[in-house]
Amino acid sequence: MYRKILMRMRMRMMNATRKVVVGWAKEYKRYLSTTTTNQILLSPPLVSVDLPEIWGSTSTLYHHHPSQSPVSHAKIINGKSIAEEITSRVASNVKRMKESIGKVPGLAVILVGQRRDSLTYVRNKIKACEEAGIKSVVAEFPDSCAEEDIMTSLSKFNEDPSVHGILVQLPLPELEYYLEFYKRTLYVLQMTCKSFLVQHLDEEKILNLVSLEKDVDGFHPINMGNLSMRGREPLFVPCTPKGCLELLLRSGVEIVGKKAVVIGRSNIVGLPIALLLQRHHATVTIVHACTKNPERITCEADIVVTAAGVPSLIRSSWLKPGAVVIDVGTCPVEDPSAEYGYRLVGDVCYEEALSIASAVTPVPGGVGPMTIAMLLCNTLDSAKWLYGFT
Amino acid sequence: MYRKILMRMRMRMMNATRKVVVGWAKEYKRYLSTTTTNQILLSPPLVSVDLPEIWGSTSTLYHHHPSQSPVSHAKIINGKSIAEEITSRVASNVKRMKESIGKVPGLAVILVGQRRDSLTYVRNKIKACEEAGIKSVVAEFPDSCAEEDIMTSLSKFNEDPSVHGILVQLPLPELEYYLEFYKRTLYVLQMTCKSFLVQHLDEEKILNLVSLEKDVDGFHPINMGNLSMRGREPLFVPCTPKGCLELLLRSGVEIVGKKAVVIGRSNIVGLPIALLLQRHHATVTIVHACTKNPERITCEADIVVTAAGVPSLIRSSWLKPGAVVIDVGTCPVEDPSAEYGYRLVGDVCYEEALSIASAVTPVPGGVGPMTIAMLLCNTLDSAKWLYGFT
Repeated sequence: MYRKILMRMRMRMMNATRKVVVGWAKEYKRYLSTTTTNQILLSPPLVSVDLPEIWGSTSTLYHHHPSQSPVSHAKIINGKSIAEEITSRVASNVKRMKESIGKVPGLAVILVGQRRDSLTYVRNKIKACEEAGIKSVVAEFPDSCAEEDIMTSLSKFNEDPSVHGILVQLPLPELEYYLEFYKRTLYVLQMTCKSFLVQHLDEEKILNLVSLEKDVDGFHPINMGNLSMRGREPLFVPCTPKGCLELLLRSGVEIVGKKAVVIGRSNIVGLPIALLLQRHHATVTIVHACTKNPERITCEADIVVTAAGVPSLIRSSWLKPGAVVIDVGTCPVEDPSAEYGYRLVGDVCYEEALSIASAVTPVPGGVGPMTIAMLLCNTLDSAKWLYGFT
Repeated sequence: MYRKILMRMRMRMMNATRKVVVGWAKEYKRYLSTTTTNQILLSPPLVSVDLPEIWGSTSTLYHHHPSQSPVSHAKIINGKSIAEEITSRVASNVKRMKESIGKVPGLAVILVGQRRDSLTYVRNKIKACEEAGIKSVVAEFPDSCAEEDIMTSLSKFNEDPSVHGILVQLPLPELEYYLEFYKRTLYVLQMTCKSFLVQHLDEEKILNLVSLEKDVDGFHPINMGNLSMRGREPLFVPCTPKGCLELLLRSGVEIVGKKAVVIGRSNIVGLPIALLLQRHHATVTIVHACTKNPERITCEADIVVTAAGVPSLIRSSWLKPGAVVIDVGTCPVEDPSAEYGYRLVGDVCYEEALSIASAVTPVPGGVGPMTIAMLLCNTLDSAKWLYGFT
């Protein structure tokens, strides 16, 4: 008798919970379908999307839709125009902030060395800040600078009340020593396998010094830990992953229950994208350089986010018909006809992807502009929190 | 000409790098095959296993072995005996520490409420501490205690120099309010979908207060962030994931390049296990309650680690022949014949798994004892660091 009552109570609870989950899903969809003037992004706070973890007997909480049939031509996800819309919303927020409290958000960038892709990225970030009315300052250092110089500059930005966001442009330079390379024995090589290039700057030490409240790149381990943990909210979500999510949401791509494959596991792109997609209830696999037959894994994915940095790695055989493809890869390739002597190429064979996927981001004009737009959003948010401005 | 030289240099670099990677793999295997008296675990420091991320054109850095043929009976991974061996090594280290500097490691446990599984876990932890010569103290609180009481107790342990490890036994209790439940409207239910049970204790706030240097459970977001990020080393790896890894290493299971599926994505088990396996270069997929057809994903995995907490979820149809199965699930099931009136059941249909897998952990006697052994290791390490004892 006691067991029966218990069983009945349990069944009622289960049914009620299912209703709640369905209710939650509807509420979430409603949230995504409405934006107010002040709301810049569709990305909701992460804790708001945490679902109770209830395992169905056959895990059919969400209905299975058969994969879409091959499409003749994929939708091109126009990151550039979405980023422009977001930037213009940020600009109007900044204007309102200036008019209302006489303050504007400030971004400080630390740039070490002369990597041409880094120079381009920083130039674009500064230009975007200007467009949005965000004050920006760049501290430039030579390749061979001392770590202390960077740390001193960083500490000043940490204390500067007019700076609300600080970013260290990665990767930090490494001193090359190819000549030394062949002189060493194999054993020493094994021991120094990470040291084809000598890292004279301690990236971890430098990034950890960035004040948590100004870490608009979201690379501080506390932000990363809170991004990975259910029930936690990072102060800032890293810009590229946040931009990818925003592209998916604005393109109406369903994430909950979908198979997502992230190609690449870097700390600044692959890993946080995987964590973010998982927080949004995708079933995520990270494919990396040690993965055997990666195409066998990617070709089952509904969503492919690639950040390997290997031009044309993703052929049509890697993709499932109807998949959504987000290409984060940007590899500079020499091109004398281009403005700066090179052009950026993605990980994806774009033409091939267009013929099989349901939606694809181009390179350039896809994720790149979104990364910058998200940087503006994070810097604005940081200033809003500091001034209690809504 | 210039291009040819560049190409030749690049090819040489690639070949050299491959040699280094192969060299690294050999070195790593050598490391794993040797233990000294002072070295308790096989688990190497995480940064030492970081590989350069070099994508082969067809990603064949590691040779593909066809899946093993079905085995008649799996090897049983005896967690109990491995844990006993580790505990005895910890004990001899503690003895040496006491004789040499007159100090012993100390563990403080915070236990809130009367959950019978929590009571069992804490009882076992204290017993293990006694066996290893580690001093232990338990601060017990009732279900309905005030958050401040826990925080005060925690702060005292943070400052106590004789305490080297602090753990808050999870989950923290929730106050039930089933009666309230049916009185509410559906809309309110949607808004409070996480609140069938009221959480009067803020788990995040409590765990964040644990001093990073004493966080032997490894649940602090900084530890979790550093666990997830390549090139970083958490002070402590959470005990259950660390125990699972140690079981795999001691059973001679190859992890690099293998497909691993983790079932469950909790902050304390599923998530950190997935992060740890990825740091060891497995291709990891996390399956959770929103995953459609989870068995189609798990049945392709070389390594399955399950932490869903759903008894008998994993049937033989979920497993690939020859897979290695680590069962973290422990569900208390009433059993009047058992010592405490209940027994623990895992996620895996044990008999079915034995007939298809190549190795399986039993429940109890698998991961459970390893979790406790890892807690002893982490507490010992913490004391060693504090006293500079090696």
